[in-house]
Amino acid sequence: MTPFLSEDFLLHTDTARELYHEHAADLPVFDYHCHLPPAQIAENHTFRNLTEAWLAGDHYKWRAMRSNGIAEKFCTGGASDREKFRAYAATVPYTLRNPLYHWTHLELQRYFGIHELLDADSADAIYDQASEQLQSMPVHELLRHRKVRVICTTDDPTDSLEHHRTIADSDLATRVYPTFRPDKALGVQNPEAFNAWTDRLADVSGIDCASFAGFLDALKMRHDFFHDLGGRLSDHGMEYAFGEPCSESAAKGIFDQARAGKAADPNQAAAFGAYLTIFFGRLDAARGWTQQFHLGAMRNNNTRRLQELGPDTGYDSIGDFSQARGLARLLDALDQTGELPKTILYNLNPADNYVFATMIGNFQDGSVPGKIQFGSGWWFLDQKEGMEWQLNALSNLGLLRRFVGMLTDSRSFLSFPRHEYFRRILCQMLGREAENGELPRDMPLLGQMVREICWENAVGYFGLETGA
Amino acid sequence: MTPFLSEDFLLHTDTARELYHEHAADLPVFDYHCHLPPAQIAENHTFRNLTEAWLAGDHYKWRAMRSNGIAEKFCTGGASDREKFRAYAATVPYTLRNPLYHWTHLELQRYFGIHELLDADSADAIYDQASEQLQSMPVHELLRHRKVRVICTTDDPTDSLEHHRTIADSDLATRVYPTFRPDKALGVQNPEAFNAWTDRLADVSGIDCASFAGFLDALKMRHDFFHDLGGRLSDHGMEYAFGEPCSESAAKGIFDQARAGKAADPNQAAAFGAYLTIFFGRLDAARGWTQQFHLGAMRNNNTRRLQELGPDTGYDSIGDFSQARGLARLLDALDQTGELPKTILYNLNPADNYVFATMIGNFQDGSVPGKIQFGSGWWFLDQKEGMEWQLNALSNLGLLRRFVGMLTDSRSFLSFPRHEYFRRILCQMLGREAENGELPRDMPLLGQMVREICWENAVGYFGLETGA
Amino acid sequence: MTPFLSEDFLLHTDTARELYHEHAADLPVFDYHCHLPPAQIAENHTFRNLTEAWLAGDHYKWRAMRSNGIAEKFCTGGASDREKFRAYAATVPYTLRNPLYHWTHLELQRYFGIHELLDADSADAIYDQASEQLQSMPVHELLRHRKVRVICTTDDPTDSLEHHRTIADSDLATRVYPTFRPDKALGVQNPEAFNAWTDRLADVSGIDCASFAGFLDALKMRHDFFHDLGGRLSDHGMEYAFGEPCSESAAKGIFDQARAGKAADPNQAAAFGAYLTIFFGRLDAARGWTQQFHLGAMRNNNTRRLQELGPDTGYDSIGDFSQARGLARLLDALDQTGELPKTILYNLNPADNYVFATMIGNFQDGSVPGKIQFGSGWWFLDQKEGMEWQLNALSNLGLLRRFVGMLTDSRSFLSFPRHEYFRRILCQMLGREAENGELPRDMPLLGQMVREICWENAVGYFGLETGA
Repeated sequence: MTPFLSEDFLLHTDTARELYHEHAADLPVFDYHCHLPPAQIAENHTFRNLTEAWLAGDHYKWRAMRSNGIAEKFCTGGASDREKFRAYAATVPYTLRNPLYHWTHLELQRYFGIHELLDADSADAIYDQASEQLQSMPVHELLRHRKVRVICTTDDPTDSLEHHRTIADSDLATRVYPTFRPDKALGVQNPEAFNAWTDRLADVSGIDCASFAGFLDALKMRHDFFHDLGGRLSDHGMEYAFGEPCSESAAKGIFDQARAGKAADPNQAAAFGAYLTIFFGRLDAARGWTQQFHLGAMRNNNTRRLQELGPDTGYDSIGDFSQARGLARLLDALDQTGELPKTILYNLNPADNYVFATMIGNFQDGSVPGKIQFGSGWWFLDQKEGMEWQLNALSNLGLLRRFVGMLTDSRSFLSFPRHEYFRRILCQMLGREAENGELPRDMPLLGQMVREICWENAVGYFGLETGA
Repeated sequence: MTPFLSEDFLLHTDTARELYHEHAADLPVFDYHCHLPPAQIAENHTFRNLTEAWLAGDHYKWRAMRSNGIAEKFCTGGASDREKFRAYAATVPYTLRNPLYHWTHLELQRYFGIHELLDADSADAIYDQASEQLQSMPVHELLRHRKVRVICTTDDPTDSLEHHRTIADSDLATRVYPTFRPDKALGVQNPEAFNAWTDRLADVSGIDCASFAGFLDALKMRHDFFHDLGGRLSDHGMEYAFGEPCSESAAKGIFDQARAGKAADPNQAAAFGAYLTIFFGRLDAARGWTQQFHLGAMRNNNTRRLQELGPDTGYDSIGDFSQARGLARLLDALDQTGELPKTILYNLNPADNYVFATMIGNFQDGSVPGKIQFGSGWWFLDQKEGMEWQLNALSNLGLLRRFVGMLTDSRSFLSFPRHEYFRRILCQMLGREAENGELPRDMPLLGQMVREICWENAVGYFGLETGA
Repeated sequence: MTPFLSEDFLLHTDTARELYHEHAADLPVFDYHCHLPPAQIAENHTFRNLTEAWLAGDHYKWRAMRSNGIAEKFCTGGASDREKFRAYAATVPYTLRNPLYHWTHLELQRYFGIHELLDADSADAIYDQASEQLQSMPVHELLRHRKVRVICTTDDPTDSLEHHRTIADSDLATRVYPTFRPDKALGVQNPEAFNAWTDRLADVSGIDCASFAGFLDALKMRHDFFHDLGGRLSDHGMEYAFGEPCSESAAKGIFDQARAGKAADPNQAAAFGAYLTIFFGRLDAARGWTQQFHLGAMRNNNTRRLQELGPDTGYDSIGDFSQARGLARLLDALDQTGELPKTILYNLNPADNYVFATMIGNFQDGSVPGKIQFGSGWWFLDQKEGMEWQLNALSNLGLLRRFVGMLTDSRSFLSFPRHEYFRRILCQMLGREAENGELPRDMPLLGQMVREICWENAVGYFGLETGA
């Protein structure tokens, strides 16, 4: 009988415990993909209370609360911070077996030393204690506390990156890099938003974007700008990869039409997306970057709430798009000209894990160990079952030991214990199999493998300097 | 070493055993969806032998027998009841690891106290003993024996519900409610059957169904009629949800054409289905009902047998339809006007479990805890592995504790031990995780959760009075 | 704590160990589907070293090496045999948790008695020892050593089968049968290759293939020829089954067009494929053969490497094609005329396992136990997780005990320990459940089931004489 969330949480064999405590626990954190706001890092923000740090912007928690019959007022609405916290606290005992139950208590333990279970009864005391502690835990302290050495944020090409400059000039030990996420450059289905964005791109780059050639030049200039500020990753969110090739003249025609205010139809939008995805991949390849694809999300399913609350408020879900052919064609197109950069594929639908895990094998070219990566369990899969599935698929069909490991993908500064969660799951997996004879119980070998997956592989793969 | 099918069947930790025996075992049964024949309940039918009670209409058993090389004569054909039983008994040792092996022996134990294994050798003795016992176990006794407090049958809108009236007037303690299942109202691809059905609808409702408006009025009147007899659920069987909206005039055109004897093409049938599905959803919302969608079955795959034996004879299987987009659009359409009723989504293809489990989160509106439900493992998934997958998907992506729990979906009065089966699986899951530190070993909390999922949530959710 | 790869590898309960050691371990091997080269069997080839025996043609190993950052020179290229072996050996410690890690060490143990772990340090010593042993282990000895009683190779209809004749006339105890694999007969999308192949067919059959009727006659004659040499299986590799029926006149038109040098478009190719698949199924039914379908592979994804290295070099992966409808229609079309032969369906995408496992149930007709089979985990699924999934799906939805069991599907004479691997997994599964009360711990019953699945069912099902 193991107590809940003890020191040996998720570690059920001696070998697993040794692997975790001796090899994994003290490693620093390399968070190569997240959505932390650079402004809050730059200003070393202090959260006014636990609600601001925990509930503002956390659509996982909102979804749980809504499922629990809690009114919107207490999620995104006008209730007070304390009321919102109470509403969440009352929901927590209904999240048993949901990752929120683990994350919530893990974060209370790690950041605040609170070992009590959160529920309606304990809500006020925990709120008061954690909120008070937060007053002496501004963002830089939260990062130092969890040994976060690298953060890659997610940024629009038109972003000035002024906050990244401020951070770089600060004495923050964590290195913070921008990631080039040009999803809005593909938005030709909505000319109004597209043109506003393209005008911003012209402004910030100083390059006239009236022509398609200018548009591409401006994007390349921004890519260079991200590079100069240390960026070495791009990121792309799509339902599925656009697999049909598109000529430059066709892409130009679609661009001109959108600039003239005429919306692209779905086929045109896909063609334009295909052209730009290849274009971005080539930029990445030329500079030695890593491109990331987040595939499979079906977003904004609730029209009423989208209109009321906007996107990213908890109304997205897993889609069941066809992934294999388009993805193969995209990677193949880049590979044919020798311009396939290091690539990480993130998959949202677990039914496609094996498709993804075999896809990466088609484009490993022997140049870089683990050049094409199957990324860690993403979003709805970022929990024990989802992480185990990804680890198993990658293990069975590729080389787990070349995996660059975990990332938070989070908007919250309190999410870093997810790296610990991942490490425990990994060590449990290896430890169990070493004890039952499926792996050799060679502790230097397994310990090395743990250190590689949890830290060293990322250091070697991304080519990013790490903080002290 | 645990003996087969002992008192602690499927319960492998002390905590699991305590949860099951102290909290789950004695709870009554709320069977909110099944296919039991109301006539047999009304007449308090006595089965002539175990073959009639067990093998007539049970396509699970027929499929197993056919797979075992047994001729159709012994499945649906003209062999004697005893011969059929022997053929099934001889198949049972070939069903090891199939849920039939568990169900068969669980039912023999629970209803007849028979602990012997069924095979060719034991067939006759078991047949004689059980058949004799059945003579003093008419349907009402079978229900009382398993503490069945609520049954929701599945009924056509044109059904007179006379049997439900008889039952309501009887002294049966179990409450038996009709469920509105209007699949035949969508059948415009086959005008002959559609018109016969629509004429029956006109007859039973007393409303002329020559016009589309009359047709809709008649459907609404039957919905009211079901409501008056206590019905609070509808049910819809479809390969996938019809996601493209359809205008009233388009639906009317398709209706008129079908009434004139011209078959709808597949696109028209989908459009008509979309219109009616929304229409039914609104009826449900207006009366506070719960709508159920059974999605993903691919039926009648064997043309030869369909012609010989008709539908529902064991030639259906799991399809691989695209589910996400259509389902999102259907629920969104109802939500946009505030007319999305309580909804249960049942999924037949386990590859889609995560799609379904995230889909429900898009439409939880805070009005009712667990308003949109991911239903229990259905049909081919109604076994240990399938139930565990559903429970895990729901747990990881939603709130397991708000789950309304198990149902039999069965045509057999001997199927109620499946509730026990489900409860054991649930308790094992919680007990194991409480002992290994993934859940707090807080027995009042976990015991409460078990009682909620196995009984209390259904009582609160459906708004149906339960029997004594 | 169990040592790595011990005598009780993968066997974690006493019951599992007893089942394996008493019932499974000594059974001979019935390898009813593989890609072993008949020429090497006929000439009783001696491998010059472990690289030739292990690395030539093994795209599993090449994929792992490329993923590990190893240049193509050491995979398919011009490096020396020793250099290639060193490159693979250095990769092995990076394959922890990949099936290669198990297979590699299992094969070293079983064939060469080498218990050391393979890595860069042990590479040379292991290479020298195994290569030397291979000098006294020609192909016939390798087969005898693993008790291989039956091998079914995979052969083109135009193959002369001269090697099969040589083998039949030799004193090899193993029986070696050809399998009719007519994929190239469907290649109307590429008239040049199709016409070359069809001309070869005309040559080898002596039937003029200018007309479609002649083409079909020639195919039938080759089918007869395979039959006369003992062949009783056909095999078909397709992305998905062609479900739309195609008339003879349409097929003839497509054939004539291809013979005239005009490529079929994708729809025509599918129609032609549908026609021929039915045609081949009827040939199989008429002669009591078993047809096999390997479905779900997406091949040749890397254009650059396809041009450099050709097909089957490690650039294939799992597709996500829609499978259910087409497969149902194909099997239904054959069943409608009573011409559905015994059939084995192999699935490559594990998301479709449940679709496949329910599909077979639609066409079991009671004539032969397990007439329609869900084949063992194939290619990327031929590892512990993949095999367990297939076994579980088949168990839950069909009759595991009627399963014809494992096959290697391999190009290597050192792959036969995969039968052992499968048997251990099967015995572990049954043993665990017998000890935890999910199965009766009836050792004669379970032992019989193990023997059936590992040997007896195949003997009964295929109608092939087995070697001594």
